[in-house]
Amino acid sequence: MKVVVIGAGMVGSAVIGELLVHGGISEIYLLDLDRDKAEGEILDYSHTTSYNYNPSANLKIGDYHHCKDADLIIMTAGPSIKKGETRIDLAGKNAKVMKDIMKNITRYTKDAIIITVTNPVDIVTYVATEELDYPRNKVIGTGTIVDSARLMRIIGNKYNLDPKNVFAYMLGEHGATSFAPWSISNICGYTLEDFIKIRGFNINLDKSLIEEDTKKIGMEVWRKKGYTNHGIAAGVGRIVKAISLDEKSILPVSVLLKGEYGLEDVALSVPCVVGENGIEKILEFSLTEEELNKLRLSAKSLKDTIAEI
Amino acid sequence: MKVVVIGAGMVGSAVIGELLVHGGISEIYLLDLDRDKAEGEILDYSHTTSYNYNPSANLKIGDYHHCKDADLIIMTAGPSIKKGETRIDLAGKNAKVMKDIMKNITRYTKDAIIITVTNPVDIVTYVATEELDYPRNKVIGTGTIVDSARLMRIIGNKYNLDPKNVFAYMLGEHGATSFAPWSISNICGYTLEDFIKIRGFNINLDKSLIEEDTKKIGMEVWRKKGYTNHGIAAGVGRIVKAISLDEKSILPVSVLLKGEYGLEDVALSVPCVVGENGIEKILEFSLTEEELNKLRLSAKSLKDTIAEI
Amino acid sequence: MKVVVIGAGMVGSAVIGELLVHGGISEIYLLDLDRDKAEGEILDYSHTTSYNYNPSANLKIGDYHHCKDADLIIMTAGPSIKKGETRIDLAGKNAKVMKDIMKNITRYTKDAIIITVTNPVDIVTYVATEELDYPRNKVIGTGTIVDSARLMRIIGNKYNLDPKNVFAYMLGEHGATSFAPWSISNICGYTLEDFIKIRGFNINLDKSLIEEDTKKIGMEVWRKKGYTNHGIAAGVGRIVKAISLDEKSILPVSVLLKGEYGLEDVALSVPCVVGENGIEKILEFSLTEEELNKLRLSAKSLKDTIAEI
Amino acid sequence: MKVVVIGAGMVGSAVIGELLVHGGISEIYLLDLDRDKAEGEILDYSHTTSYNYNPSANLKIGDYHHCKDADLIIMTAGPSIKKGETRIDLAGKNAKVMKDIMKNITRYTKDAIIITVTNPVDIVTYVATEELDYPRNKVIGTGTIVDSARLMRIIGNKYNLDPKNVFAYMLGEHGATSFAPWSISNICGYTLEDFIKIRGFNINLDKSLIEEDTKKIGMEVWRKKGYTNHGIAAGVGRIVKAISLDEKSILPVSVLLKGEYGLEDVALSVPCVVGENGIEKILEFSLTEEELNKLRLSAKSLKDTIAEI
Repeated sequence: MKVVVIGAGMVGSAVIGELLVHGGISEIYLLDLDRDKAEGEILDYSHTTSYNYNPSANLKIGDYHHCKDADLIIMTAGPSIKKGETRIDLAGKNAKVMKDIMKNITRYTKDAIIITVTNPVDIVTYVATEELDYPRNKVIGTGTIVDSARLMRIIGNKYNLDPKNVFAYMLGEHGATSFAPWSISNICGYTLEDFIKIRGFNINLDKSLIEEDTKKIGMEVWRKKGYTNHGIAAGVGRIVKAISLDEKSILPVSVLLKGEYGLEDVALSVPCVVGENGIEKILEFSLTEEELNKLRLSAKSLKDTIAEI
Repeated sequence: MKVVVIGAGMVGSAVIGELLVHGGISEIYLLDLDRDKAEGEILDYSHTTSYNYNPSANLKIGDYHHCKDADLIIMTAGPSIKKGETRIDLAGKNAKVMKDIMKNITRYTKDAIIITVTNPVDIVTYVATEELDYPRNKVIGTGTIVDSARLMRIIGNKYNLDPKNVFAYMLGEHGATSFAPWSISNICGYTLEDFIKIRGFNINLDKSLIEEDTKKIGMEVWRKKGYTNHGIAAGVGRIVKAISLDEKSILPVSVLLKGEYGLEDVALSVPCVVGENGIEKILEFSLTEEELNKLRLSAKSLKDTIAEI
Repeated sequence: MKVVVIGAGMVGSAVIGELLVHGGISEIYLLDLDRDKAEGEILDYSHTTSYNYNPSANLKIGDYHHCKDADLIIMTAGPSIKKGETRIDLAGKNAKVMKDIMKNITRYTKDAIIITVTNPVDIVTYVATEELDYPRNKVIGTGTIVDSARLMRIIGNKYNLDPKNVFAYMLGEHGATSFAPWSISNICGYTLEDFIKIRGFNINLDKSLIEEDTKKIGMEVWRKKGYTNHGIAAGVGRIVKAISLDEKSILPVSVLLKGEYGLEDVALSVPCVVGENGIEKILEFSLTEEELNKLRLSAKSLKDTIAEI
Repeated sequence: MKVVVIGAGMVGSAVIGELLVHGGISEIYLLDLDRDKAEGEILDYSHTTSYNYNPSANLKIGDYHHCKDADLIIMTAGPSIKKGETRIDLAGKNAKVMKDIMKNITRYTKDAIIITVTNPVDIVTYVATEELDYPRNKVIGTGTIVDSARLMRIIGNKYNLDPKNVFAYMLGEHGATSFAPWSISNICGYTLEDFIKIRGFNINLDKSLIEEDTKKIGMEVWRKKGYTNHGIAAGVGRIVKAISLDEKSILPVSVLLKGEYGLEDVALSVPCVVGENGIEKILEFSLTEEELNKLRLSAKSLKDTIAEI
């Protein structure tokens, strides 16, 4: 499996760590405008391969022509949000970055699966597919996969349970208008409310507070350490595993919609079946009317951003 | 982490494979009446440790005195069912085997967590706790953990989905009277019926057939390859992970009941929270009356077996 | 990566375990004349995939036509040695088995890399390449990879050191005429003799005894547990890792010689560079005259066997 | 296994990644004067635990009292070198940081094994043992473990071989006076020179250039990406594996010498046997006189630094 990672920033660097842990990836190319940065990361990681237990993967500096036979391209490039900057500012900048990069990629391939991570990830995913006509099943935005992981961890902590025992998603925009469709959240098939007694706890369950905490926690990490990388890199790792093992896993990821949920011309996170062909099925969940409204609101917010930039 | 595996048969051998993959277990003792068999397995596995990527764990022939400081004891010893033999025959034989082994163990420790795998696992778990007074939170029968894995895989196959996306349990006896509490089974919070349309499939869902297939599949493996070991060993590996990482995972495992679900003097599988202290909480699910009846029937069947032997 | 495993016996079964641990193999086909046996193994392993931490790989019953796009074929089929049987008997039987299987394989591919494990592995490797004209760089016999692991472990035990710190090989036939080329064995660049003092031990180093013990230990495992599987399966796993990650690892494996070491028309184990193209280079070590004589003796023994069958 | 990581900078953060991959570590405490930074890292990593394949380890903000029952303390705190700063400046600052930290640690434990990573690591290791009287077998400086990995990778690249096939060490100070004892370096028991022909290459082998490149490469990474973290974190991971699995691995690590190699009152890297008790044996290699002189020079340089601060 040959992978090209675009962007050698904190996220790109952590993504390479995930790829090395994967166990089955033989060739990794890292590409960055700042060639020094990419070389520094490659060199640093290459000093891990002499140890037992660590894979002797081939890590190399990449150029766009390496996309030619790539199985997977992971897009992490583009500036992050700066203090004082608005979301629209960033969207404009990174939509442009994405367009440039996509033009370079599509000169070499329309076969590779692309995982988009750069924020605002839904806009970037939209640009890659709608504006540059890359097959939509082959562009997977990390979207709310990390928000969902955060939600499950917050709930897991509350119940003192393994977060893997909690089922809950965040859907919609990876950003302010994301929401938790509570109608589907459950622990072992019981609603969160019903499971309080089963767990034997007497906890206070304020679901809108949990939702708010989930939305704020990325910002909190950003405020405290200056960026987020490990959580999102693990999200990328999860998607790569689903593709490389053809797992047919249901994951909440950002995808260009063409009528699903009554929405089109927008990319946002809904549950998808992910396998060796990328997004193999966009699942249309029977959400409640209230939840559907939140999804529509999220779509509208994203479309407004697209219109503005 | 120091582990003693009792029994060097096909299951004990596969369990050692799981322990080596775990990554954090430094000492493994294998104990068998047939010392040659144990030595053969230890030797064979010790020839894996020279390879990069493989842990250089210490594998040794065990004696009961090694239980003294063990963190974990995994009980796989005892004859398997033979053709023409009844379940009662096996129960009688292995209850006796278990009593002898437990007497040997308790001379050295009542602190280690014991995972019982020997069949009939519920009887063996009962004997270890009720008759030999080992703390019940420290005796974990693998019970229906493997049946539940089978159920999720069968359903996953039907929906062409990662079995990890399916939530479903088998509960009760690890044997003929086990049952699937369908009221809790779900995919992403939807009933199996509702998810058919969401998946975009037109499949026929005969849940009682799925339940029957799940119950027969162990026997099918046994008939086809003469024994089962990899599935059950993976179940042991799952429990070991939950204990060693203190995951607080909910797992369906066999435990001595003392009033839970209105049952006592019997061990069978119900959902438990498993962590560093073993079974940290027996969860009392709000099953339907029909499901509760099946659980009671399972308990009765096990009690009858105990009475007979 | 698509892998076909031929043979569902103890070795084939353990090899599948190794493939699942690998982390990057998405499709595994298991093929056996005894279809029930293969189905039993596949079913049993498929009950491991529902657990977290375990890959949801696709395990399927294989037919020869699955070799068509396979990246890797692992050959473990054929009867094992029975009590009272001579090595020649087994060689004759399994050479025939191999011919039949190779004819079936080559109807579909000459591109896949084949790892031969069936014993006598050197004869089987010879038959696959010389008689059936499969490219010799694509047929890798496990040969003395397991003997070398055993040798390093025995020495490691003697020095109370991680066997990965020991460098030593067994070369030649995987069998009675294998030998340890002591001129290259070392610990951290020191001879085994010199390292005794460095380790601070006062041990007795009888190298010919160590060599004998290494040669007998496979038989000892066989005598004690009835077969060997975990050690050899780990050897297969090591080769698979070298291929799938294109590691360019030096491994002692069985390969058809065409003039190297002055030998031809025989396959036996010499150090080879293994990468994505299989055997990428046969290394001609500067062995001592005594060691070269042992290698020639080993070749002669194998040629005699070939002539007899 | 309970681990306390001191320092939430780039190295501390990457070390936590290594600990999570380890597979058997259940409790990790991260401690930093900048509590926000530590919280940010913990939060970010905690968003990885909801994914399948990722361990649900307990990650928590640490205080010194968590050292009480810790099995392992990993010391990464202290400022890194700034542009324009001399090595002595940094040594002075971090020796003081180390003294403060060690006083805090020793209030709670003298039992935990401490891995020191903070630079200059040899000075920091010296301060921890000699000045604060912590048992020297329990303070392991990462020292030249990363330089050795770099050396093996550089040589591996030259020969187009898996670096794990190369045996070579850097010894002495982790810094300007480190050196490669070429007398022990080898590939499969052959000198690097002799192996050129065996590999079938016609390469130019300038060993003093390789040594220089190895010494400069850390600085090159630092210049290119602003810090080094992945290589050194992998070195920590290697040491942790050796301790937790009691591997008795020979690793080049920094340790306080008390007469070994004729040196005392100084800590620097020499080959040590590492196992569950930390440094279980300091190996005295039979280096050449020239190599011994380099080791003495390295010791002198370190002693001068100690004297100055």
